[in-house]
Amino acid sequence: MGIRIGILGYGNLGRGVECALRQNPDMELKAVFTRRNPGEVSILTKTAKVCSVSEAKAWRGDLDVLILCGGSATDLPVQTPEYAEFFNVVDSFDTHARIPEHFARVNDAAQRGGNTAVISVGWDPGMFSLNRMYANAILPEGRDYTFWGRGVSQGHSDAVRRIAGVKDAKQYTIPVESALEAVRAGGNPELTVRQKHTRECFVVAEEGADKAAIENEIKTMPNYFADYDTTVHFISQEELDRDHGSIPHGGLVLRSGSTGWEGENRHLIEYSLKLDSNPEFTASVIVAYARAAWRLSQEGASGCKTVFDIAPAYLSARSGEELRASML
Amino acid sequence: MGIRIGILGYGNLGRGVECALRQNPDMELKAVFTRRNPGEVSILTKTAKVCSVSEAKAWRGDLDVLILCGGSATDLPVQTPEYAEFFNVVDSFDTHARIPEHFARVNDAAQRGGNTAVISVGWDPGMFSLNRMYANAILPEGRDYTFWGRGVSQGHSDAVRRIAGVKDAKQYTIPVESALEAVRAGGNPELTVRQKHTRECFVVAEEGADKAAIENEIKTMPNYFADYDTTVHFISQEELDRDHGSIPHGGLVLRSGSTGWEGENRHLIEYSLKLDSNPEFTASVIVAYARAAWRLSQEGASGCKTVFDIAPAYLSARSGEELRASML
Repeated sequence: MGIRIGILGYGNLGRGVECALRQNPDMELKAVFTRRNPGEVSILTKTAKVCSVSEAKAWRGDLDVLILCGGSATDLPVQTPEYAEFFNVVDSFDTHARIPEHFARVNDAAQRGGNTAVISVGWDPGMFSLNRMYANAILPEGRDYTFWGRGVSQGHSDAVRRIAGVKDAKQYTIPVESALEAVRAGGNPELTVRQKHTRECFVVAEEGADKAAIENEIKTMPNYFADYDTTVHFISQEELDRDHGSIPHGGLVLRSGSTGWEGENRHLIEYSLKLDSNPEFTASVIVAYARAAWRLSQEGASGCKTVFDIAPAYLSARSGEELRASML
Repeated sequence: MGIRIGILGYGNLGRGVECALRQNPDMELKAVFTRRNPGEVSILTKTAKVCSVSEAKAWRGDLDVLILCGGSATDLPVQTPEYAEFFNVVDSFDTHARIPEHFARVNDAAQRGGNTAVISVGWDPGMFSLNRMYANAILPEGRDYTFWGRGVSQGHSDAVRRIAGVKDAKQYTIPVESALEAVRAGGNPELTVRQKHTRECFVVAEEGADKAAIENEIKTMPNYFADYDTTVHFISQEELDRDHGSIPHGGLVLRSGSTGWEGENRHLIEYSLKLDSNPEFTASVIVAYARAAWRLSQEGASGCKTVFDIAPAYLSARSGEELRASML
């Protein structure tokens, strides 16, 4: 029998987890828990059940790991501590500034329940964090750079959609190639927000809307756009649906540092992701950490962990012997 | 007091470790052990001693970690098991095919001595291995590619220098840009040895030597050059010393994979290193793992470990709290 998995929340991320589980034969999806009417939610896995979220805790003992696929704004701050008392859990909490308090609350709950919780799993936080940490440990004298994109920012797309006269919109975050090249050249440049990323918006305006006013409102929006060079394209709903229906993302983490008795030698560490589907890639990372959570809990671990606290081998279905022989 | 470090073997790697320690204020170099006459070895760190390798074991109790900086061909297969019984040790054993047997012998010795040994630390094996492993765990359906260079291969340079009529030589391994682009394009290409790398040799011929014969002997040398497109340049000793005196290296690890219910979405994970000094970067990785070895041993661990077995946080001088607040 494989590791028995439950999914709580069946949006893009939940569906991504379902797909990722299918690629990992040592794991098995047992149930999807939803706030919607279970009869109206249709999932891809024929052998798994769809249940109301109110039934989830009754599955204690029948699930090895519960994967929490809610949002970071309001779902996970409540759900992860709540369910960590009953299950080993993994979440993708991504509000960087609030991670310390989330960690503390989840840690208390997981310890109370004797479970292993892994928070903030995905690519940023997640794989990008890992790469920042490894690179900093290796090159203590150096400088970090993180670039995001080219990819769809959900938060920025939502901000544009809230503007009066906007029917629909998609926003892309794009790293500035010349800034990237300056980092790669090893000059450790100081880069402003504007120098690192541009923003590109594809907007469907309502009939008769004042496009110039919309464009101006976007470009001057504080926090979201004012500090960036932003391009706005007005297109039809058909064009938006046809050309901007997917959710690509990605980015780069770089560390440029020096070694030698007088810092005379330079080094560049670069990690990059190009993702056709942001939620599916995030889900794939989460599933690997679900395996780790289960194994750690089998060894008697409890409490909250992050990607920093988990030895890489726990993520792989292969044995230590196989890993040493094939990948070291 | 910092973590007390000894270095065994003071060549390029040993000197690199000495330099890396200077960048890590929680660690302190106490002694360098050499097979040469200690009186004739001058080191950079004024506060450390230079001792004969025959004295090393007497330092048990005065060193927290002994870093083994010998070669993989003949030194480390003997030294790592020998010293793992007396000290926590880290080595950079890089003969991939012989890692399983090295692991077994070092593991026995380290367990006998109650010490922690970390083997095969550096960038390949090391950081490249980690990236292969993480990427495989995240994208089970996909394909791995490792490219090396542009960089100096010591083994290939030595092979050229052994040819009659060759006074001195340097060999560079170079990834083929079009092969890299094909991988990045996501086509999961099958690539032959010849399609992935080219080799470039800078050769100083002895006076009166038959350059055409040397070039032919290089290009047809089995295992080393016959399977590659190789370019040979004859230059003077002055040019070699002036233009080819450093030891740069680097390379890339890529995994191209797919997710989705029918594998409909593609992803590319890419990790790359551009290193001015191969031994200094390797040394910097080793020093981070020396910190990990010491901490693991303080927690009561013993036996042999690799980069797969060590949680990333052990490498950093920062606390878990600091790491979560600053890097997650």
